[in-house]
Amino acid sequence: MKIAIAQLNPIIGDLANNAQKINDAAQFAASQNARLLLTPELSLCGYPPRDLLLNPSFVKSLSLELEQLSKKIPPQLAVLVGTVTANTDAYIKGEKPLFNSVAWLENGQIKQIFHKRLLPNYDVFDEARYFEPGRQSNYFQLTDFESSEILKIGVTICEDLWNDQEFWGQKYYEHNPLADLIDFGVDLIVNLSASPYTVGKQKIREKMIKYSSQRYQIPIVYTNQIGGNDDLIFDGNSFVVNRQGKIALRLKGFEENIQVVDFDLKAKDFCSSSLNDHTTIEEEEIWLALVLGLKDYAKKCGFSKAVLGLSGGIDSSLVAAIATEALGKDNVLGLLMPSPFSSEHSITDAEALVKNLGINSYKFPIEDVMNSYDTLLHPLFLGTEFGIAEENLQSRIRGNLLMAIANKFGYLLLSTGNKSEMAVGYCTLYGDMNGGLAVISDVPKTRVFSLCQWLNRHTEVIPHNVLIKPPSAELKPNQVDQDSLPPYDILDEILDRLIHRHQSVSQIHDAGFDLAVINKILKLVIRAEFKRKQAPPGLKVTDRAFGTGWRMPIASRWKID
Amino acid sequence: MKIAIAQLNPIIGDLANNAQKINDAAQFAASQNARLLLTPELSLCGYPPRDLLLNPSFVKSLSLELEQLSKKIPPQLAVLVGTVTANTDAYIKGEKPLFNSVAWLENGQIKQIFHKRLLPNYDVFDEARYFEPGRQSNYFQLTDFESSEILKIGVTICEDLWNDQEFWGQKYYEHNPLADLIDFGVDLIVNLSASPYTVGKQKIREKMIKYSSQRYQIPIVYTNQIGGNDDLIFDGNSFVVNRQGKIALRLKGFEENIQVVDFDLKAKDFCSSSLNDHTTIEEEEIWLALVLGLKDYAKKCGFSKAVLGLSGGIDSSLVAAIATEALGKDNVLGLLMPSPFSSEHSITDAEALVKNLGINSYKFPIEDVMNSYDTLLHPLFLGTEFGIAEENLQSRIRGNLLMAIANKFGYLLLSTGNKSEMAVGYCTLYGDMNGGLAVISDVPKTRVFSLCQWLNRHTEVIPHNVLIKPPSAELKPNQVDQDSLPPYDILDEILDRLIHRHQSVSQIHDAGFDLAVINKILKLVIRAEFKRKQAPPGLKVTDRAFGTGWRMPIASRWKID
Repeated sequence: MKIAIAQLNPIIGDLANNAQKINDAAQFAASQNARLLLTPELSLCGYPPRDLLLNPSFVKSLSLELEQLSKKIPPQLAVLVGTVTANTDAYIKGEKPLFNSVAWLENGQIKQIFHKRLLPNYDVFDEARYFEPGRQSNYFQLTDFESSEILKIGVTICEDLWNDQEFWGQKYYEHNPLADLIDFGVDLIVNLSASPYTVGKQKIREKMIKYSSQRYQIPIVYTNQIGGNDDLIFDGNSFVVNRQGKIALRLKGFEENIQVVDFDLKAKDFCSSSLNDHTTIEEEEIWLALVLGLKDYAKKCGFSKAVLGLSGGIDSSLVAAIATEALGKDNVLGLLMPSPFSSEHSITDAEALVKNLGINSYKFPIEDVMNSYDTLLHPLFLGTEFGIAEENLQSRIRGNLLMAIANKFGYLLLSTGNKSEMAVGYCTLYGDMNGGLAVISDVPKTRVFSLCQWLNRHTEVIPHNVLIKPPSAELKPNQVDQDSLPPYDILDEILDRLIHRHQSVSQIHDAGFDLAVINKILKLVIRAEFKRKQAPPGLKVTDRAFGTGWRMPIASRWKID
Repeated sequence: MKIAIAQLNPIIGDLANNAQKINDAAQFAASQNARLLLTPELSLCGYPPRDLLLNPSFVKSLSLELEQLSKKIPPQLAVLVGTVTANTDAYIKGEKPLFNSVAWLENGQIKQIFHKRLLPNYDVFDEARYFEPGRQSNYFQLTDFESSEILKIGVTICEDLWNDQEFWGQKYYEHNPLADLIDFGVDLIVNLSASPYTVGKQKIREKMIKYSSQRYQIPIVYTNQIGGNDDLIFDGNSFVVNRQGKIALRLKGFEENIQVVDFDLKAKDFCSSSLNDHTTIEEEEIWLALVLGLKDYAKKCGFSKAVLGLSGGIDSSLVAAIATEALGKDNVLGLLMPSPFSSEHSITDAEALVKNLGINSYKFPIEDVMNSYDTLLHPLFLGTEFGIAEENLQSRIRGNLLMAIANKFGYLLLSTGNKSEMAVGYCTLYGDMNGGLAVISDVPKTRVFSLCQWLNRHTEVIPHNVLIKPPSAELKPNQVDQDSLPPYDILDEILDRLIHRHQSVSQIHDAGFDLAVINKILKLVIRAEFKRKQAPPGLKVTDRAFGTGWRMPIASRWKID
């Protein structure tokens, strides 16, 4: 029996478009004689729909769209569609008004509805805000038309598979839907997911699902959404595991794809393939994620072209390379905006990059604009020293020029700050932070370097000099980052411990770092919160990105010593 | 028996400061011979602590601070302190790792811990992200030393009181902690709250609690946090209701306060007072809220002075008046930044306002800076028409000047956009949206007018001409808002239906509004999402403010017809 897996890229809230994608997949699946088609979690509205769910008419529209879609499914094909359904007695029972559901469509009908039981409500996830957990796990019975054999297929939605106490060494939720389905004697588990990308996540997914399939001797089909939705990048990487815990099929990551896999009705299993464990170079994985994230943000917001400032530094060079890959070289415009503090190489390096990438560029020397501000500010600034105000002003002049070009010609402005800078606030609000999307704001500086080195593995993309010169904001004479920050490898390690591992100052100190340095960095991180609150959405590639999953107070004292 | 109610203003995460406040209140309560002191929800860490809770050392510090505090409480006084406690078997049971708790301190000991059962997870609330709901309601027994009588006191935390199905006509949660405590035969219910201000909320609180006290024939003491924490303003307005549903005491809103109330042990009730139902003029209430919100944001972030742009328009005039009240006239600086498109009255009206308020001001004509940008952009802009790029540039030049002053002299920059503008995107990102705090971003334009009229009730604060001239951004010749928007009363009504009441286009149309107008506004609202994502925190005064409680996707299609 053939099962088709459609790894789709929906647009949030665009029900007609998403239904069309599902229908296209269904027509294809039918042409391949598939008996069952799987789509990702919430495939009809896209994940995450967020507060669109608070509009009753949105949920009603979903219901109508599902109804219409059900009429279009080819005969002899069952389709599992992710959608939202109403919890009709929520107000009597004191429950949330919606379920995160899967609908089984077949024969022009909605034959059965399944509800997600484990609702993630951490990091970027807010499912408890909208949904009531499903009360029990359910399966459906699918008849194979050739053999008349009936398969019992257990339905799970994303997080439902993520609570194997044996695998994790602890329980995250009270129930384990997988174990409950095994008790029902199902032949197969399907999972509809919308699991966002983070570095190394696919390894964990496969390890966990292989563990469960072996533990319960059950084949599992994992179908994941792909595509960028604001800060979140869904990587797809859907896969099939047989009851020996072997990979039977894996869909390519970071692209829309549909594949068919054969379920052996006799063995009640998938044949194992020659596929090895998922291995990629992390840099390649992050590169693909960022390219997809940028491409989809632009496309889904209606942009075809992007503009960014090129300082000759490594961050803007990397973002330019990502933009070139995502949008094409003719659709990327780099602005060189030298000031009197800019080094000679800031221009030559940026020009070398422009040449390597083949993108468009334009040069705006900002000295005259700086002078016009200075003249205006002079009476008030008289007698004060050159400082943060003057440094930021240069960055903000550049930000204004970039926005002027973006507004005039309909470009998407890309901001180029990295995660280390965003953490300690070495970035100018309303200056270099300007942009519709922060492409590498979840990429630490040390990773920016390794990404560029990986990018240059065959041929020079990022000019060599960009990689070897000391990072500098060039906002005052002879300034380099390392004047006021520890070396980036130490900074990034301390930040990782503070931000990702929730370590206290004393824990980090015990790990061998200087107390004064840790305290200085912590202070900078706390102080920069007001900047991060106003940052553009940043593509998430780690398990703790600034943005929707980072919810810190501004007016506070952060005591973690 | 005397009960003291401390309506405290904590700083989020500043445990030492907050413990000191509680201890000061305890010393005062003891001096008044109080037997019991109540403090607000999470009084030890302040509400909401947000992701500070993800640091294990933060929770450990809370526990140490509570221990130390318990040793300082004067003899013969019981104190209820709001704090966070660990759910020690969370990982065995599959639960969240923390509880939102109340600790009963007495005699140098932590005598009992109570857990919040109903966890709000809507609007700005994210309690399910951190906390496990308490499994049952509990009371404690307090002995009156004079009579040796023992009182059974039921403990509830904020939301625990908000699920009376009879009052609401529906259930929001499965359990009703109040009803459970009644079953235990308690003599008195206390509630520790951190309930943020919205227009008219105190009326609802009193109506609901009076209803419950009458229904269950139980006296209730409601203790609420006060103070501004980022976008949230806590109004205090703590009160006591006796079993007849009469108000026995009400603490003043919007200020830190401690009061003592006498519980009649014979009648097991509070005496009713001569206090009437809570009535205020909405404008006065909002005014007090905004003044407190601005004052606390500045103070808790370490600012004593604020700067803002004065356009001679009503929005910046109102914000200047709020800042003057919050920080004092000597600490407010208004910048007048006329362009060639500015009207004569933009300057004269702003100058009249400066005079009325007695604040400092400075004038920066921006024409020369505009020209310097024009010269630079000329080669690229040649042949294009004056449009959004040029309009925004003026706003961004002003934004840069404001930030230059803010950076140079350590001012807090206030942004002055109203909610109607923020909704439809009639505001410039990196321009007039610049600021550390958006003071009136949750105040619709029609309410801005009524606030100014209320402010002028005795004497002219906002110059008369500001109130009567047609609103304009003055970014091109003869521009007025009403050129491209419906009249503000119609705009605000449609926005209210879209944003607050979650109505669909057809519902709004059925209410008598023009379909083309509704669709245009909806489109503007959707398109402006990217701007709102980068807006400064805005003081929340309605039940649906843009900001932490508004979680919309950007790259989406919002279909609500």
